[in-house]
Amino acid sequence: MAEDRFALRPGERRLGFDPAAHPRAQLTFIGRIRSSWGPENCPKNLMRARDSGQTATVEIDLPYRAGLEGIAPGDRVLLLYWMDHAPRDLIRQVPRHRPEGAGVFALRSPARPNPVSLAAVVCTAIDHAAGRMQIDAIDCYDGTPLLDIKPWLPTVDIPPDTITSG
Amino acid sequence: MAEDRFALRPGERRLGFDPAAHPRAQLTFIGRIRSSWGPENCPKNLMRARDSGQTATVEIDLPYRAGLEGIAPGDRVLLLYWMDHAPRDLIRQVPRHRPEGAGVFALRSPARPNPVSLAAVVCTAIDHAAGRMQIDAIDCYDGTPLLDIKPWLPTVDIPPDTITSG
Repeated sequence: MAEDRFALRPGERRLGFDPAAHPRAQLTFIGRIRSSWGPENCPKNLMRARDSGQTATVEIDLPYRAGLEGIAPGDRVLLLYWMDHAPRDLIRQVPRHRPEGAGVFALRSPARPNPVSLAAVVCTAIDHAAGRMQIDAIDCYDGTPLLDIKPWLPTVDIPPDTITSG
Repeated sequence: MAEDRFALRPGERRLGFDPAAHPRAQLTFIGRIRSSWGPENCPKNLMRARDSGQTATVEIDLPYRAGLEGIAPGDRVLLLYWMDHAPRDLIRQVPRHRPEGAGVFALRSPARPNPVSLAAVVCTAIDHAAGRMQIDAIDCYDGTPLLDIKPWLPTVDIPPDTITSG
């Protein structure tokens, strides 16, 4: 299994070093994501996760629970989480849906120099004291470390359609 | 200046510890953001930055430039960057636009346990070999460390308007 995941496909390229060996900043974990997913059944992206109808839960560690004040059911939020199973050195990748391949920064692969994923989801229920928030869908394994929650704002989180350069 | 930034306003609360003292994962920097902004003139958010008409440039370090393959002018991308000037222990904050205050996870403040910010922007020009990408706008200081670039995808990056719980 693991060998399969880390073997290169034709056209793929490694950095030649592990970005984790060049630490410049430290992340802490504020909680965990509880999902129905593991390596054998995890949806490829958030759209497919949503289509599955499976909800998920975010568990916030005790010191950070006061940070949930102001989040209510129906709110749209961004979750940032740490893809701790992903290799960090695949600079060019060839996903099945893109057989010509592309650079990692043109792909949403979890395998990237800094494996921070983000999901735009809906808070469907929240227990502030218990530090538990139910969300409509997620596309990561059960137990994935949580880094941040931010309100999703259409005024800043939807980029313009077109920009005239110069 | 610094004292002003780190003093608590009425209603604000600290964690009582520095999240940086509890590292669980390591980030590396893949480049820097070059902007027109510093502490004295930085826009409060991306919408205001866009209104200013000031563009910005992303500089990617040599080993990571191959990761830009597939990004073209006109593409909408997400940038993740490290707010290295922000305090990490303000769990409840009282911004000027929200005098009743709120938990950090209900706010887009750069001051948060893991100070990772994100911006949904437009690539207006790109030099893959030089590792330089021009973007339409950004809301961070010149020199801010860059963590990641991802394609912005409306199918996953716009959450549903409403979700029926249960």
